[in-house]
Amino acid sequence: MNRPRRSEQTRKALIAAGIEHLSVHGYHGTGIKQILDEVSVPKGSFYNFFASKEAFVAEVIGHYSRDLLDQLSEFMTGVGKDLSAVEQLRAIYLYSLKQYASHDFKKSCLVGSIATEISAESEMCRIELERAMGQWLAFYSGVFAQGQAQGLMRDDISPSDMAAVYWAAWEGSLIKMKMSADTQPVKKIMELMIETLLKKS
Amino acid sequence: MNRPRRSEQTRKALIAAGIEHLSVHGYHGTGIKQILDEVSVPKGSFYNFFASKEAFVAEVIGHYSRDLLDQLSEFMTGVGKDLSAVEQLRAIYLYSLKQYASHDFKKSCLVGSIATEISAESEMCRIELERAMGQWLAFYSGVFAQGQAQGLMRDDISPSDMAAVYWAAWEGSLIKMKMSADTQPVKKIMELMIETLLKKS
Repeated sequence: MNRPRRSEQTRKALIAAGIEHLSVHGYHGTGIKQILDEVSVPKGSFYNFFASKEAFVAEVIGHYSRDLLDQLSEFMTGVGKDLSAVEQLRAIYLYSLKQYASHDFKKSCLVGSIATEISAESEMCRIELERAMGQWLAFYSGVFAQGQAQGLMRDDISPSDMAAVYWAAWEGSLIKMKMSADTQPVKKIMELMIETLLKKS
Repeated sequence: MNRPRRSEQTRKALIAAGIEHLSVHGYHGTGIKQILDEVSVPKGSFYNFFASKEAFVAEVIGHYSRDLLDQLSEFMTGVGKDLSAVEQLRAIYLYSLKQYASHDFKKSCLVGSIATEISAESEMCRIELERAMGQWLAFYSGVFAQGQAQGLMRDDISPSDMAAVYWAAWEGSLIKMKMSADTQPVKKIMELMIETLLKKS
């Protein structure tokens, strides 16, 4: 009864390699062959797992997003539990930046980085990207609602609107990070968001 | 003496086609062959104009950015002259959104859309992208400085910091536009920026 287990492992390995390659090279810059070579899977068997490159990438997006949400949820019920909403937001963005810097800024948010490239071409991927964005917006909304309840965040904007503008500033500042190969500009922008623009005055 | 003129025209046509293709398909999704076919130029002569695809794209980025700045400068000395800083910012973002919507959201800001894809791979393109971003930040800084002088914008943040966070929110919201194939979320975010977060209270 090893077979199903092994094929499940192969599937997971293909998705993990997909996350790595797509984060760095984007949709068009990622070849299925590179991914198969990395996982040592013959080309023919790729199609036992996924109907097409497009279906594969859609699944990678969903997987990446769920992984991140699991990490966020673990943080929020663990180390982050006793932090204020502002401290939670800071810890989350600093953690992400540390990851990106350790990869020489070759990687950034997979969703943000391939959304522009592929949304108009692949409806299947666009739906997965939009779903991922929706889940993060819901997550951030919760943090901002908590920040308002704590009296830390301004209360003339709804938590969901705060989440929308915060997410946009985050994704946009990651573009700046890649251009300048530096995390400093992102820190500056995110601190402006949480310490000045979204703060209760 | 037609030759130099014709070759200058061809060069311009190649760059114009480059802007179109790169805005829609990104760096890796754009083939030099497609561009040559569109402009009816034989493959060999591409290298009379540009040393490589990378050099071509770097030049396209510079050209795209200069074009936009020229349009902005024309707007600011023409129709925009009598508008307040807030109205200028609104007119600029609405004009851009109209362009994107008329292309079914297949196109968005060329600089933002290929920066994530190519910054880590091409130092030549990264430098051009960073230069383009620097020029826009300088432009927006001027508008925010004017907004502060008009008493419309908050004055506890420097104009350059306001420009940085505004640019990030803009680029990030364009990612959301492509994911949702809708300009409404961008309008919401940009209005929050200019009417609430960056406004003098």
